[in-house]
Amino acid sequence: MSPAGGGLFVEHLAESECWDLLSSGRVGRIGVLVDSAPEIYPMNYAVSDRAVFFRTDEGSKLRGLERSPSVCFEVDEMQADLRTGWSVLLKGRASELVDPADVDRARALELELWSVGAKSHWFRIDPREVTGRRIDRGG
Amino acid sequence: MSPAGGGLFVEHLAESECWDLLSSGRVGRIGVLVDSAPEIYPMNYAVSDRAVFFRTDEGSKLRGLERSPSVCFEVDEMQADLRTGWSVLLKGRASELVDPADVDRARALELELWSVGAKSHWFRIDPREVTGRRIDRGG
Repeated sequence: MSPAGGGLFVEHLAESECWDLLSSGRVGRIGVLVDSAPEIYPMNYAVSDRAVFFRTDEGSKLRGLERSPSVCFEVDEMQADLRTGWSVLLKGRASELVDPADVDRARALELELWSVGAKSHWFRIDPREVTGRRIDRGG
Repeated sequence: MSPAGGGLFVEHLAESECWDLLSSGRVGRIGVLVDSAPEIYPMNYAVSDRAVFFRTDEGSKLRGLERSPSVCFEVDEMQADLRTGWSVLLKGRASELVDPADVDRARALELELWSVGAKSHWFRIDPREVTGRRIDRGG
């Protein structure tokens, strides 16, 4: 832990804890390249087999994924009032599920849909690097 | 509004409402290019004069900003239990404040610091495009 301003400490999280936090969430944010610039989209997701699964429709996110599969995926929980929180950043490669058996397995995951559209494209993100940190008050 | 699954509707927000939502927040997420891939970092920010102000330290975020000033900034508020929420995405250009008078004006903004480091680099993001949407229950 390193001292931070205002009695706050920052702690770098072990990868296993990052996965626990990723697995406990339901809404995260994907970062994709669209026309050479980053864009961020909140989305529902599920974690299985140390990969992140999600669905999407036609649109700029899908076009970005097809052209530039290097993506990142972020989850966080920030308590603005307490100025504490944690965040996890996964950097990796997104690939569309094309094998019907893979799509069937992904369908079995608890992946809520709460946006418009058929979301007919299934993707997985395989991680290259997973890091996280927590900002907390010293004891 | 367009119908969504499960009795949900998606509404595209007017730019003025996007700015109201941006102005009401304290924690957002910046998307930057680092080594040709997107990365997402949660951060405190302040809005003034239709621009987003933030501070940062040395690190991969700063290196990314210097090499590739095309960034995005996202805020959202998602109620996972209700499957409703809103998000705003600002795409634009980040530039470091170099004029001491600009830095002084930025210092006067209500910008909380709750992370480690001196955060000696001040930046502003000037928007090229601001979009937002809300997912809500119909009726």
